[in-house]
Amino acid sequence: MTYCLAIKLNEGLVFCSDSRTHAGADQVSSYSKMHRFSMFDDRELVVLTAGNLATTQAVIATLTRDVQEEASFNLGTVRYVSEMADYIGRLSIEIQGKYKAGGAVAGFDSSASFIVGGQIGNEKQCLYMVYPEGNHISASHQHPFLQIGETKYGKPLLERIIKPTTDPETAMRCALVSMDSTMRSNATVGPPIELLYFAGNHAKADTQYHLFEKSDPFLVKLSQSWEEKICQAFNELPKLDEVFNASLLNG
Amino acid sequence: MTYCLAIKLNEGLVFCSDSRTHAGADQVSSYSKMHRFSMFDDRELVVLTAGNLATTQAVIATLTRDVQEEASFNLGTVRYVSEMADYIGRLSIEIQGKYKAGGAVAGFDSSASFIVGGQIGNEKQCLYMVYPEGNHISASHQHPFLQIGETKYGKPLLERIIKPTTDPETAMRCALVSMDSTMRSNATVGPPIELLYFAGNHAKADTQYHLFEKSDPFLVKLSQSWEEKICQAFNELPKLDEVFNASLLNG
Repeated sequence: MTYCLAIKLNEGLVFCSDSRTHAGADQVSSYSKMHRFSMFDDRELVVLTAGNLATTQAVIATLTRDVQEEASFNLGTVRYVSEMADYIGRLSIEIQGKYKAGGAVAGFDSSASFIVGGQIGNEKQCLYMVYPEGNHISASHQHPFLQIGETKYGKPLLERIIKPTTDPETAMRCALVSMDSTMRSNATVGPPIELLYFAGNHAKADTQYHLFEKSDPFLVKLSQSWEEKICQAFNELPKLDEVFNASLLNG
Repeated sequence: MTYCLAIKLNEGLVFCSDSRTHAGADQVSSYSKMHRFSMFDDRELVVLTAGNLATTQAVIATLTRDVQEEASFNLGTVRYVSEMADYIGRLSIEIQGKYKAGGAVAGFDSSASFIVGGQIGNEKQCLYMVYPEGNHISASHQHPFLQIGETKYGKPLLERIIKPTTDPETAMRCALVSMDSTMRSNATVGPPIELLYFAGNHAKADTQYHLFEKSDPFLVKLSQSWEEKICQAFNELPKLDEVFNASLLNG
């Protein structure tokens, strides 16, 4: 499994991804799911991947090769981030179809999903999620974050904290805590965790990237602190005694 | 969708369920998913249901009819709660099979799952989850809670708070907060919320039951309070400034 998320803030884009992949309990390994295409002067493009590793690797490899071979249509020539999302959707269904057609065994699932984000020239920053079917949706003011993979455990916190006006540090911290809750509840999501931020002001100097290993002191501290604070917050909630008869409950 | 959970404490059993059912966005209604069989002197038995409403209603109706008709095997004669879980699993697959065989349309899903708990005579309290396939697992010391339906949003809090030694009020409150997080993230889980507690000391006087309507003052207060405290807890977490260069992040 996988958990990747991205957030579209007024100030910039946040990307966060885990690195665990598995094909059965005895085939667990680490692969980066954050792919950054930063070979261009006029654009910053990022792809996060979830789903079948062979499919996502083939998609990323094709994107890279098309740039290297200067194909007539490649990441360097796409005019909009949405065109890039279309392109990835097209590659994804093409590759999925190839393996489905190859006489797949029962239970085989070649599907994959992607988060695609970035900025091209003077266009605004954009963020899309590409479904396994190849179509895509965009992040919006009402829904400023997108998730792929094991999305549910980490969603409630994002819904409470993230708004377009949230500052970058808060959004990055929220992404990490959302990732921490997911890792806690699902053993197939795991470190290292990658965290990336692009400012929307075209200033590459404002870009932030960090890879958190399992034992990263900040990640450990954040996780412990969240555990303590959640328990403390819970303990401070109004007690049910006013609903039930207190004497029965406590005695 | 549905969210039901139950907790096996050293002191007693907690059950919590939502009431929303839907078959398409234009067919949303309220049905209780908590079924209590309290017509017996020597036993308290509870079933929580999730999945296809026709299947779960047929299972509950059969359980009830078997008692009324004093069938040779019924909830009044089962010797163990695990026997009751077997019985429900058997009925469930029987009923599911009937509708599958009837030439179901594509996408039709007659499957259902159940949480079964209670106490028979001088036996200890027991708690089981019955899968759509009819087999079942039990709650354990290491895993004191069971969930069915839309389980993921509300799981991280349960994992942090619930232990077998947790007191009943805390466990019930945790069940309600877990339900609140789920309702917030999934529109197909909704009130009224039912909450039930059975003490393990055979004292029926210790039983607690409450139905929380959407506007229940305690539920509203709990939800608001949790929202505030979560945001406050989050704001008190260590900042990422120590990971990244603070001056870049903050402006």
